[in-house]
Amino acid sequence: MPHVYERDGAEIYRQSFRTIRAEAELGRFSPEEERVAVRMIHAAGMVDLVRHIRFSPSFAVTAFAALEAGAPILCDARMVSEGITRARLPVDNPILCTLGDPQVPDLARAMNNTRSAAALELWRPHMEGAIVAIGNAPTALFHLLNMLEDPACPRPAAIIGCPVGFVGAAESKEALWEAQPVPCCIVEGRLGGSAMTVAAINALASAAE
Amino acid sequence: MPHVYERDGAEIYRQSFRTIRAEAELGRFSPEEERVAVRMIHAAGMVDLVRHIRFSPSFAVTAFAALEAGAPILCDARMVSEGITRARLPVDNPILCTLGDPQVPDLARAMNNTRSAAALELWRPHMEGAIVAIGNAPTALFHLLNMLEDPACPRPAAIIGCPVGFVGAAESKEALWEAQPVPCCIVEGRLGGSAMTVAAINALASAAE
Repeated sequence: MPHVYERDGAEIYRQSFRTIRAEAELGRFSPEEERVAVRMIHAAGMVDLVRHIRFSPSFAVTAFAALEAGAPILCDARMVSEGITRARLPVDNPILCTLGDPQVPDLARAMNNTRSAAALELWRPHMEGAIVAIGNAPTALFHLLNMLEDPACPRPAAIIGCPVGFVGAAESKEALWEAQPVPCCIVEGRLGGSAMTVAAINALASAAE
Repeated sequence: MPHVYERDGAEIYRQSFRTIRAEAELGRFSPEEERVAVRMIHAAGMVDLVRHIRFSPSFAVTAFAALEAGAPILCDARMVSEGITRARLPVDNPILCTLGDPQVPDLARAMNNTRSAAALELWRPHMEGAIVAIGNAPTALFHLLNMLEDPACPRPAAIIGCPVGFVGAAESKEALWEAQPVPCCIVEGRLGGSAMTVAAINALASAAE
């Protein structure tokens, strides 16, 4: 007997978002933040994620406006850059992931750092006013913070800091939250990853659900 | 003051896996399953994930052997196909994601189903002996199960069934677990996603940690 299941993509989204809004404690968020949080929870399949999401006060409004104005999106991993739904972007914003650039392995050796961190050096010409989306590597987020300690380094408009894992993830996100060099969003602790990072971008890209 | 952090990728992996093995209840797994579970936990940043992971008895050994023998890897989403570490694959196994194929939108309309489900119809010539990696869409997993109800449909060697979310994810994975048309691995409930699906493939691809 064939399995019977909901096959309408739009209806699946509606039911999913309705379930999340029924189950998750979203009261502390602004309307803009709420939309971002709902999509992040959706991507994680985990209502409890809400307890770990933090937005700096102007993050959602700033990031939304930057995307509307054409900001590029700088991603630390191809799982992030490939996951973003191009059709939702307001003005065909450029999406950049430099991790696979042929200069990166040599740069990483010279910097005595990971390829994920070294790849950020190639962001410099694109960083001013950009949306930074770090969904994988704690070393990338730490290196970004060190880059931004130099006042001459171009400033992104906003940072999504969601690296995941057991070494440096919690620490790098706390460091971002303390420094807040620009408006930012984090998922505190070990949780994070490309899916929720992509979800945040997809939510910021369009008010349509 | 610049942030100081662990910059050695190999050391980050070692520390991460050591933490996971210290914290997670892995005793019920075979050595091959344990390696897969550890990487899935690593990708999720969540030790508790272990309670939701289920392997059918021959899954890990079968999938490992299939990859060694050159099995292609069929992925439901580009976040899965892009996340797989090519360098770990034993014989440069083909990786296929048909979601972006230009035939898929028309096929989806004709099938009255999602594009994620329709894309699987293009897997048929590659399915025999393949590793199926479903890390996003419940509709893809349900459609796969319906395809496999036809004895004439080619059989994959093994299925990783990890769709995520609030509509159909838990149900489609339970349906896979009940049917077990071939050896399989699931993450029960709402949790799932591309990162843990990729992690399972990366673990099965090589015994090296």
